[in-house]
Amino acid sequence: MARKSSIADLNCGMAQTAHLIGDRWTLLILWDAFNGVDTFDAFKEHLGLSTSVLSAELAKLVEAGVLSKRASPEDKRSHLYKLTEKGFALYPVIVAMSDWGERWRPHENGPRVRLIEKATGLPVRGAEVVSASGVKLDPREVRVEAGPGADAHVLAFVDRPWRRARP
Amino acid sequence: MARKSSIADLNCGMAQTAHLIGDRWTLLILWDAFNGVDTFDAFKEHLGLSTSVLSAELAKLVEAGVLSKRASPEDKRSHLYKLTEKGFALYPVIVAMSDWGERWRPHENGPRVRLIEKATGLPVRGAEVVSASGVKLDPREVRVEAGPGADAHVLAFVDRPWRRARP
Repeated sequence: MARKSSIADLNCGMAQTAHLIGDRWTLLILWDAFNGVDTFDAFKEHLGLSTSVLSAELAKLVEAGVLSKRASPEDKRSHLYKLTEKGFALYPVIVAMSDWGERWRPHENGPRVRLIEKATGLPVRGAEVVSASGVKLDPREVRVEAGPGADAHVLAFVDRPWRRARP
Repeated sequence: MARKSSIADLNCGMAQTAHLIGDRWTLLILWDAFNGVDTFDAFKEHLGLSTSVLSAELAKLVEAGVLSKRASPEDKRSHLYKLTEKGFALYPVIVAMSDWGERWRPHENGPRVRLIEKATGLPVRGAEVVSASGVKLDPREVRVEAGPGADAHVLAFVDRPWRRARP
């Protein structure tokens, strides 16, 4: 049976983001980019990706404006791939995923990475959903409302038509 | 050319998380679960997924302990899929992705969803990477260090062997 809808067609911020970066290798490429990897050969060496897959992934992220691509000042035949502001804005996604993996799929010897605030040398607390006053929120403390850009896909979260089918 | 490594084999919190949830449909199923969708038919109706794909996705998330599955008290032939504590812990990932899509792939009429703190009725600020003292951090204010669980994959972020190849 075919899927009724393409994710790219869903009018939903989550779907739009998932369409672009909801892919294992895309996420690892972004994590590498946040950690200073910036050339084709370095991504390839570090992630063990094939040339064709890596080429397609980097082209997708450059086209989406998440990475910039420019000639390397050190070697004009090579290019540097750097996060743009749009790319830097994905930081909470990436840190939240790394945090979750450290917490719920830990290594027996301890954390694999530690994020350190440069200015203070202190460990970063992590990625949190925060209230208007900056307090960490649990998902059960939050409700979703439809905004002016919502259509039936998002309104279903509020109207919950699927509940009507229940006895 | 084959990939040299499987993501599941990478000793990295990010890779472990990406292996499990780094998939477009997995992410949308989780977003639905955070918004109260909890039956097979409701996921199917809302996301337009095929029975076989949805079955496999839900089984994966139950097996990983992210969703629980139990008989519906209303209809014993049906099951309810609910986020576990391990699943709730993915909230910052999901909110960060929704936020990013609203910001960088907006709808012309405005936000599609608004997250509201139940206790105050105020809009949630969003998912942020926060310092030890609770201040929002920009990625350029943070450095990565290897922890005791690190192997060569993570140590590469610190040692940066790929830089040696540069002139």
